[in-house]
This record gives sequence, C-alpha cells and structure tokens, in this order.
Amino acid sequence: MDGEALANLAMTEDQFDSQLADCAIETEAFLAAHLATLDAPERLLAAMAHGALDGGKRLRPFLVRLSASLFAVPHEKSLAVGAALEMIHCYSLVHDDLPDMDNDELRRGKPTVWKAFDPALAILAGDALLTEAFALLSDPRTHPDPAIRAELVLTLAHAAGPAGMVGGQVLDIEGETSPLDEDAIFAMQAKKTGALIRAGVEMGAILGNASPAQRSGLTRFGTAAGLAFQIADDILDVTATSHALGKTAGKDVVQNKSTIVARKGLDAARQVLDGAVANGIDALLPFGPSADPLRALIRHFAARQS
Amino acid sequence: MDGEALANLAMTEDQFDSQLADCAIETEAFLAAHLATLDAPERLLAAMAHGALDGGKRLRPFLVRLSASLFAVPHEKSLAVGAALEMIHCYSLVHDDLPDMDNDELRRGKPTVWKAFDPALAILAGDALLTEAFALLSDPRTHPDPAIRAELVLTLAHAAGPAGMVGGQVLDIEGETSPLDEDAIFAMQAKKTGALIRAGVEMGAILGNASPAQRSGLTRFGTAAGLAFQIADDILDVTATSHALGKTAGKDVVQNKSTIVARKGLDAARQVLDGAVANGIDALLPFGPSADPLRALIRHFAARQS
Repeated sequence: MDGEALANLAMTEDQFDSQLADCAIETEAFLAAHLATLDAPERLLAAMAHGALDGGKRLRPFLVRLSASLFAVPHEKSLAVGAALEMIHCYSLVHDDLPDMDNDELRRGKPTVWKAFDPALAILAGDALLTEAFALLSDPRTHPDPAIRAELVLTLAHAAGPAGMVGGQVLDIEGETSPLDEDAIFAMQAKKTGALIRAGVEMGAILGNASPAQRSGLTRFGTAAGLAFQIADDILDVTATSHALGKTAGKDVVQNKSTIVARKGLDAARQVLDGAVANGIDALLPFGPSADPLRALIRHFAARQS
Repeated sequence: MDGEALANLAMTEDQFDSQLADCAIETEAFLAAHLATLDAPERLLAAMAHGALDGGKRLRPFLVRLSASLFAVPHEKSLAVGAALEMIHCYSLVHDDLPDMDNDELRRGKPTVWKAFDPALAILAGDALLTEAFALLSDPRTHPDPAIRAELVLTLAHAAGPAGMVGGQVLDIEGETSPLDEDAIFAMQAKKTGALIRAGVEMGAILGNASPAQRSGLTRFGTAAGLAFQIADDILDVTATSHALGKTAGKDVVQNKSTIVARKGLDAARQVLDGAVANGIDALLPFGPSADPLRALIRHFAARQS
C-alpha cells in the first residue's frame, strides 16, 4: 500500500474536521486569555478582541500545529506560535477593511472593527495586534530556547513585512489600476496570502528543529498550500454567496482585482489549483503517513465552500 | 570636584551637539541602506523612506547609543538597534498623521506620507516599518547572541504595543472628549511617549549586559527622560511657531488634547519638567562621568526649542 492509500485510510474527513475544530477552539481560548492579561485601555482591548476573536477557521494556527506535529511537538507547545501568526493575519484584515483601504463593512458576518468602533481605533487595534504578535513570539513562556524565539520572530517578520504580506497588498492595490499579467498575479499572491501560510508551516518546522532537507520540503509544501488557498479564494469570490462567505462576495470584480480567475477564467484557475494541491502533496512524500493531516489540509483548502 | 561639576567640564554643548548630529547621520545612512536591501514594491519603499528618512534628530537612537556606551558597547554595535527603535517611532508618526487620526498634512516641514502618497499606502508603509523593525532586531547581523535579540524584541514590542505606546495613543484620543485628570495625563504620557524613550535606554542596557541594579537605574532614568521629553513637547506646542517645530503648532489646543500645560498652566508644567530632569540625573549617579552624555541629553530634552 502506498502513502497515498494509507493517507486515505489514516484520516477520514470527520477526523480532519474534528482536529481543525479543536485547534480553532484552543486558539480562540488562548487568544482570549492572552488579551485578558494585557494592561491596555478597555476600548483598545475590545477592538483587538473584535478583530481577533470569534472568527475564522484558524487555518494558519492549524498549519503551525500540523507542521510541528511532524516532529512530535505537542499541541500545547505550538499554540502560542499559532496564536501569534493568527494575530498577524487578523491585524491585516482589520487594516484591509478600513475605509481608506477596501472600505468593507462586513467580515465573518459581523461589522468590521472600524464599523463597530471607529477608523482611528481600528488603525490602532491593528497596530496593537501586530506588535503584540512579536511580544508573544519573543516571550520565554512561548519557548524556552531564545534561539528558537529569535528565529520565529525573524521568520514571521519577513513573511508579514514589506517583502512579504504588506508588499503583496501594495502590489494587489496597484493591480486594480494597471492590470497585472499572469506572472505578476502569481508573484503578488505568493506575497499577499502565500507568505503567511508558508510562514505557518516554517514556524512549525522551527519548533520541531527540522533538518535543512525537512525544512526545505515543508517550505515547498507551504508555498503550494498558499497558492492553493488563494486560487480557491478567488474562485469562491465569483462562485459563492456573501452569506456562505460571511463577507462581501464578488468584490474582486467590483474592485477590478487582478486574479487568475479574472485573467484566465474559472477552468484554468481550477487547473492551477489542482496542480498546486498535487505539488504540495508531492513535497510531503518524505514525511510518510505522519503528514496525512497536512495532505488533508491542502485538499481542504482546494475544496472549501467558504 | 563632584560628578555634576565634572559633567559640566566633561561635555560642552558643542560636543553634545556634534555627537547627536553624528548619530543622526549614521542612523540615517543605516536606515537608507537597510531599506535599499528590501525586496519590496517601489512605491511601498518610497513611502517607507518618506516616513523614515530625512527627518528628526534621531533622539531615540541616540539614547540607545549613549546607554550602550555606558557599557563600552561600540557605536556600530548599537546602530541597528537604534534604527529599529526609530522605525517604530516613524511608523507611529505615519499612522498618527492619517486623515482618520490627527489628519495632519505637515511633518518636519514636509508633506506627511498620506499627503505625499495616499492614505492606503500610508497605512501599509506604517505597517511595513513596524514589522521591519522586528525583522531587524531579530536578525543575527544585529547581534550574534539570540538571547539578546529575543530580549530586544520583547522589550520593544512591550513598549510599542497595547500596554505601551499604542495604549497611550488610545488614552490620548479618549482624553480629547473626556478630559483626563492630572494622574491620568501622566499615565497616558508615560505610555504614549515615555515607553519608547525608556525602551531606548533599556535596549542599550540589554546590549551592554547591564546588571539588574544598573538596568533598574537606567529604567528610572528612561522614565524621567520620557516625562521630560513629553512635557517639553507640550510646552513647545503652546510657545513655539509651526515654522520652528516643522509641524503644526497649537494643535493640542485645537484638538482639545489633555496635557499638563492645559490642565495646570505653563509655570506648573515647567516645574514638572525641572523635577523630571533632576530625577533623571539623580538616577545616573552610580554611572559617574561616563553618563555625562545622558545627563546632557535629558537637559537637551528640557531646553529644546523645536
């Protein structure tokens, strides 16, 4: 029996859903408890909580968990790192939704932070989540080895900064007025969405003291997972309803966003998506059946309906 | 001859000015070179440069340098840490100036970032400067010891985050509509401006492997220096011209900001300022003449005209 067949035996869809839900619940609890420890003004904490709690499937923390699990790192040892990554993701959504950015009023079926509070507080709450993510990663309680902490900070800061996510957001905005070609779209998406997803996988590898070869295989998986996630997102934007998404559907078209769907059509986009899933699964070959949950995750990215 | 008299002999005003100017030039060059290494979109880099270069006296990097110098850390070894702190300071100005925040069009005599580019890019450039500060601190080239790097990240993230600078900004905004009492003004300013200034002194102590007693003395100095800086700023807001400040003067009054000057008047504010200077100088007693530049710096904070 080959690894693929084993994978199908080893992890049913129900098991996957239940592990993902567990991770979301634990991440939520961790974030809520962490915010409660902060000596910060009440309205700021409320805005941070609005932006970071009660939301999403926590796919990025799940990536950290599954990647760390390959190296037998127990879940509770990767929880803070996943939560820090999620804070970065949430800050980016809080700022993205601002009137001066996407001007979005709905996120995960709730008013966005600027709508629930005001734009100034949303800017500051985003800044606070971003900064606190690095406080959390560099906290000795997150990992006893300072070399691991420093590498986690470096990895996440590179992924989230001007050469990573923020750089991708700028390219995305520029693509609204001067359409990007196919290569430029892939490059933009690799930064905008891909960088954080890859960082999640890499941070798991850092926690697990992965060998260079293992790290490189996981980086390749992370890159493929980021691509699969983004293409699936672009497909959903044109095929799903706002209700199913919990955010405004069809806004890529309204905002004239440069996406592979817009440039090449739905069928071509679905082919790219299939290719990314195959590529990601291929990169996991050396890890054997222990990587089944990561295989299930990249398939989940491709199959998700919201 | 006591330490105070020695201090006066040891450091003339010209020497101080020249050391401060050297640090500003070297910080500027470091920041420019660092930005040039980033693989980021051109417009984002231009906006980051607009927000971070050609500006200010670089007082915070100078604090890092002088504090580290107490422990014989050479200037080139503290430069990156000072630059990271300055990036945090600059990001906070870029976001502060936004239309949704202070709506300021002039900063250091130049158009603010949102005015020179657009508000969306200013939000992202601020996010990028903030994130890149942590990439720089956690970079092995900044310090070979990962334990030092992790502690620098933790110190700066605490100072800049929800319990520090960003928390202070929220309290400051709240103070515009519900006036703060004197204690609340001090508490707000200790976070809003004081936290980063204290962090600068503390990061120098971290670079120098300061003993707990030395660290605690420097923390006390940093707290006093932060207070002196802020009170001097509030006094200047009502006594100086926009031309001298290179930014809009009188805006505390227009924005109904809660300041000690507004609450207690100029004379009382000047007394608080003198007390903070004396307190800061007192905290430096154990360091002897090697702390003369820090003594000169807190006096400079109090005496500055812009």
